Amino acid sequence: MTTILGNLDMKRKYSVFLGNVGPCSDRYCAAYAAPLGIEALFERAASIDLLGGVDLVATPGLLGDVALVKRCLASTGLKVVSVAVDHFTQARWGKGSFSSIDPALRRAAVDATRETMDLAVELGCSLVTIWPGQDGYDYIFQADYLRERGWFAAGVKEACQHNPAVKVTLEYKLKEPRTHCYVNTVGTAILLVKEVDEANCGVVLDYGHALLGHENPAESVALLHRYGKLLSHVHINDNYRSWDDDMIVGSVHSLEYLEFFHWLRRTGYDGWMTIDQFPYREDGRDAVAESAAWLDALEDVLDRADPSEIDRVLQLKDGVAASKLARKLLLNR
Amino acid sequence: MTTILGNLDMKRKYSVFLGNVGPCSDRYCAAYAAPLGIEALFERAASIDLLGGVDLVATPGLLGDVALVKRCLASTGLKVVSVAVDHFTQARWGKGSFSSIDPALRRAAVDATRETMDLAVELGCSLVTIWPGQDGYDYIFQADYLRERGWFAAGVKEACQHNPAVKVTLEYKLKEPRTHCYVNTVGTAILLVKEVDEANCGVVLDYGHALLGHENPAESVALLHRYGKLLSHVHINDNYRSWDDDMIVGSVHSLEYLEFFHWLRRTGYDGWMTIDQFPYREDGRDAVAESAAWLDALEDVLDRADPSEIDRVLQLKDGVAASKLARKLLLNR
Amino acid sequence: MTTILGNLDMKRKYSVFLGNVGPCSDRYCAAYAAPLGIEALFERAASIDLLGGVDLVATPGLLGDVALVKRCLASTGLKVVSVAVDHFTQARWGKGSFSSIDPALRRAAVDATRETMDLAVELGCSLVTIWPGQDGYDYIFQADYLRERGWFAAGVKEACQHNPAVKVTLEYKLKEPRTHCYVNTVGTAILLVKEVDEANCGVVLDYGHALLGHENPAESVALLHRYGKLLSHVHINDNYRSWDDDMIVGSVHSLEYLEFFHWLRRTGYDGWMTIDQFPYREDGRDAVAESAAWLDALEDVLDRADPSEIDRVLQLKDGVAASKLARKLLLNR
Amino acid sequence: MTTILGNLDMKRKYSVFLGNVGPCSDRYCAAYAAPLGIEALFERAASIDLLGGVDLVATPGLLGDVALVKRCLASTGLKVVSVAVDHFTQARWGKGSFSSIDPALRRAAVDATRETMDLAVELGCSLVTIWPGQDGYDYIFQADYLRERGWFAAGVKEACQHNPAVKVTLEYKLKEPRTHCYVNTVGTAILLVKEVDEANCGVVLDYGHALLGHENPAESVALLHRYGKLLSHVHINDNYRSWDDDMIVGSVHSLEYLEFFHWLRRTGYDGWMTIDQFPYREDGRDAVAESAAWLDALEDVLDRADPSEIDRVLQLKDGVAASKLARKLLLNR
Repeated sequence: MTTILGNLDMKRKYSVFLGNVGPCSDRYCAAYAAPLGIEALFERAASIDLLGGVDLVATPGLLGDVALVKRCLASTGLKVVSVAVDHFTQARWGKGSFSSIDPALRRAAVDATRETMDLAVELGCSLVTIWPGQDGYDYIFQADYLRERGWFAAGVKEACQHNPAVKVTLEYKLKEPRTHCYVNTVGTAILLVKEVDEANCGVVLDYGHALLGHENPAESVALLHRYGKLLSHVHINDNYRSWDDDMIVGSVHSLEYLEFFHWLRRTGYDGWMTIDQFPYREDGRDAVAESAAWLDALEDVLDRADPSEIDRVLQLKDGVAASKLARKLLLNR
Repeated sequence: MTTILGNLDMKRKYSVFLGNVGPCSDRYCAAYAAPLGIEALFERAASIDLLGGVDLVATPGLLGDVALVKRCLASTGLKVVSVAVDHFTQARWGKGSFSSIDPALRRAAVDATRETMDLAVELGCSLVTIWPGQDGYDYIFQADYLRERGWFAAGVKEACQHNPAVKVTLEYKLKEPRTHCYVNTVGTAILLVKEVDEANCGVVLDYGHALLGHENPAESVALLHRYGKLLSHVHINDNYRSWDDDMIVGSVHSLEYLEFFHWLRRTGYDGWMTIDQFPYREDGRDAVAESAAWLDALEDVLDRADPSEIDRVLQLKDGVAASKLARKLLLNR
Repeated sequence: MTTILGNLDMKRKYSVFLGNVGPCSDRYCAAYAAPLGIEALFERAASIDLLGGVDLVATPGLLGDVALVKRCLASTGLKVVSVAVDHFTQARWGKGSFSSIDPALRRAAVDATRETMDLAVELGCSLVTIWPGQDGYDYIFQADYLRERGWFAAGVKEACQHNPAVKVTLEYKLKEPRTHCYVNTVGTAILLVKEVDEANCGVVLDYGHALLGHENPAESVALLHRYGKLLSHVHINDNYRSWDDDMIVGSVHSLEYLEFFHWLRRTGYDGWMTIDQFPYREDGRDAVAESAAWLDALEDVLDRADPSEIDRVLQLKDGVAASKLARKLLLNR
Repeated sequence: MTTILGNLDMKRKYSVFLGNVGPCSDRYCAAYAAPLGIEALFERAASIDLLGGVDLVATPGLLGDVALVKRCLASTGLKVVSVAVDHFTQARWGKGSFSSIDPALRRAAVDATRETMDLAVELGCSLVTIWPGQDGYDYIFQADYLRERGWFAAGVKEACQHNPAVKVTLEYKLKEPRTHCYVNTVGTAILLVKEVDEANCGVVLDYGHALLGHENPAESVALLHRYGKLLSHVHINDNYRSWDDDMIVGSVHSLEYLEFFHWLRRTGYDGWMTIDQFPYREDGRDAVAESAAWLDALEDVLDRADPSEIDRVLQLKDGVAASKLARKLLLNR
């Protein structure tokens, strides 16, 4: 398919979290490489031909330099695909945002979302991501699950009502940084969106989070479609299934991506795929370029296939037929 | 603990799957011990003072000998707590029951459920369990998730309508015997019950299945309460979190049970707890008696505690306070 | 490469556990399909062109019909690649074989191994497999690890001494049927072989067991090479990493096989690869044929590659270079 | 418990990593609380009565202020239990220390170890810890396992030879920060120590790392004893088994600790137990005090038990007997 996207005539709609082309930290090492400024990050992202957009995180640093962000967007021609509320990098959110036991923090979580929604609009984007990684708990006997979930849903609802023209999309993840996150699986994410009950509330499926949660990402796409066409955004990366390793797309899994892309197409997903990875020891730009190259190559495999032939196999419910299809797609054998 | 009048006037409502007091198999060894008849199984169950009931599985063997079952119930004084539809021990269900691609099998799955509901009524019981372990898939590209889920929900709905006075309760499990089961987590179980939309449809929480699905069982109780008071039955056992090991209750975990029991009490669960384990190498009766003894001892810990004090700690959202509470409960330190 | 193997002029040395082409059971369903006799199993195995051999398990059934096995070998031209001691299908081994606390059973475990070694020789094969799945424990506080490991090592040593011309090869697996097996990882398998200290004692690497144990199978090959060229046999299948699902080869993973085959070649492994799977719901023959087709197709990928180019990349220690190599191998991009 | 003379004449030998009583970071949030200086950390550690020592990490910051460390030791009366080489907080080690493909970094890894050994001696301590978290790999096709393991073993051996009076102890961990670490399980740790073949080389067992690696920590103690009395040090914390959550001791598991402590005692371990946790959202001092209180309370359970009675149960190899023992120990029932 060919779509005209801003200044780029792209076959694919691939984006990246801006920070991913730069250095990153883990809990042991504060910096595996020297930090880069906003301009340098934009230039690095723009140097990857397959990318047409960037996703931003509304950190204090970014919020303090919106004019620069606009200049970088103009000079690179990159589009803002989504802006994520920063509910996770600041110590104040350590014990939760929308579900905090402190009413002032719950208020602040809503306000930060509204502010991010306004910023998104200002940057020409109608998609805001909420990743409530700090909303959850670590210990047994540490939480009143009922009242905290109530606060969480109420806060998201209030934020959604701020501007119905902005899609507010919730990213689920089993765990990390909490050992237990409230919005943890595709099932609880759907339940929450139904409870929020606002038309502009949807779900981000992060491919790696789905694997971490012992989901088959293709099936999760089907579930989001079945329960109200709730899929609003896709994050993509790879991991070994037991942790959110945030690795280069395609570096571990192969067939799961093909089935995932087939179901995205089959259910009519026409949004972006945003590369979301942590290249601790690699050059960020090069690692992101790798992900984009894998994405394109894996989608090419599907482009060459006949989707109705795939659907026919899905309906046989036959492991051997599934295996034959997979081998033909991947190895042409 | 004080029991009066045989096993019936009890402080606790503990049951066991009848077969659990007998021998069991795995995929390598067809029989770790000699089989036992229905009468012998009932006698063994009745010999455990803490048990007041049994859960049955409506296998062809049991269906063929209902009169004997009635005599055993009468002679032992045990109550039938639930009857499970046999959607899993027969080869015909190997590729699915309600979600089979074969319409005749989908019909048969509904019929088997109706037959089991009738049997339950005949045995003085108003709870039927559906464990759809064969409904799911193993391979990538093996299933059309949308149409199979549709069939599944429609079949359960039709079965529920057979007799609104019988509770039909769905048991979720991440995997096994399929590598991927459709009713896999507390979230998707709730979504399914909402889709079925019949007042007599509920959810069984199997403590070990919750652990296998990376859930905290206490939090799953809260979710089932929050989304419509859906908890209809509890199965109990233990495992090491990565497989449904079906071990003696309390032999691995301790604190998780205490939090789980607290939330059962807090949300007003007044049903039974049914021991559901596979004592491959142990004497079945002795292993079940162990589980009952642990259950009683762990519930005694909570009986001695002040529930409002526990609730107060839950509302602090504080890991250190949670740890202090846990240690006080478990070790009185 | 082309090697002459018995009556077959084969490019590859692929075998299968004879029973794999027939039906199988799990702990819920005693038979997903009707049983097949020895002759039928041989005919089905022989119908798969890519197979040159079979691996047998010395069950009482097989031991009682050795003459028939010989006739089947002669009529099909299949070679016996290994014979596995049956330390796992009989109830008597339920609490352990070489490590049983019962001296008579420890003696029987050695005797069964000797008998299997003799049978192997009689069938023209010099490889015997020990899979000590029942040697381990399930519960905390259930075992005296020190004395049981001592018994285990002594028993294997005694068995090895029975005939130094027969390779006795130990298969490690993290768990199942016990929740904890003694010979659980590549590391403890190597330690055990070193303790046994007999030249005819080696290790079987089951690809799926390595994944289950959170190993990278290619690295495990390197370890077995490094610590004394201990790799004697390879079992192959696929799984989702958290259980020994015993699925069709290549149906889940792709790149891991390529790296695994590269390391087998690099370390000079010239033995067989034995398909070892449990096709519960598939026709056994067809599922095994699929595995063989995948194996051949994946090895073809490596045949077309330049091994020195792969080794050059391994020495860069660079994630981006690794990703590029993987994509080129798999998708020629 | 009875302590006399400040923290030194103690029934228990409990220590803590000095930094644990202060704030910590994760990959999202650079600081959950304000940093604390060395003096403040020592004061906080000393305020916990059950602690008699500290473990240090020889970071550039610490190495630059050894005189202050000495003053703090003198003023608090705390003993230095071990000093860990800093092979993990600096970007230069990002691609490995002893196993780096850069010969200058391999040299630097040895030099840093020697320097840390000298520092340990200067601080009155004869135990140095090597945690090679950066030595491993992330991607498939990323490493030449053979040559890197060779370099690793050679580097450790050379470091050991620097001062035979200092114990050099290797800490194994399955993964993190790499997705695959070379010294990953108790088995490979033992193999490595045997390869290094220096009398002053041993193994640190981190209880949480053992759980992460799907080990039963008690069995790992037995293995370390069996293969040469290699256990030199113990780190202690808790987690949910699938990640190194570094939580408060006893906050998740109970029975595993009791079996672990029994095997430490049975195999004659007389070293320290060092609390090693990451209290992201808790006050560090309070979280460490909790761990010490749990340790003491759990050890008290064993102090009240008869070890020969425990050993008698271990030798029954009986799941039901194990369960009874566990319940009696934990709940006196």
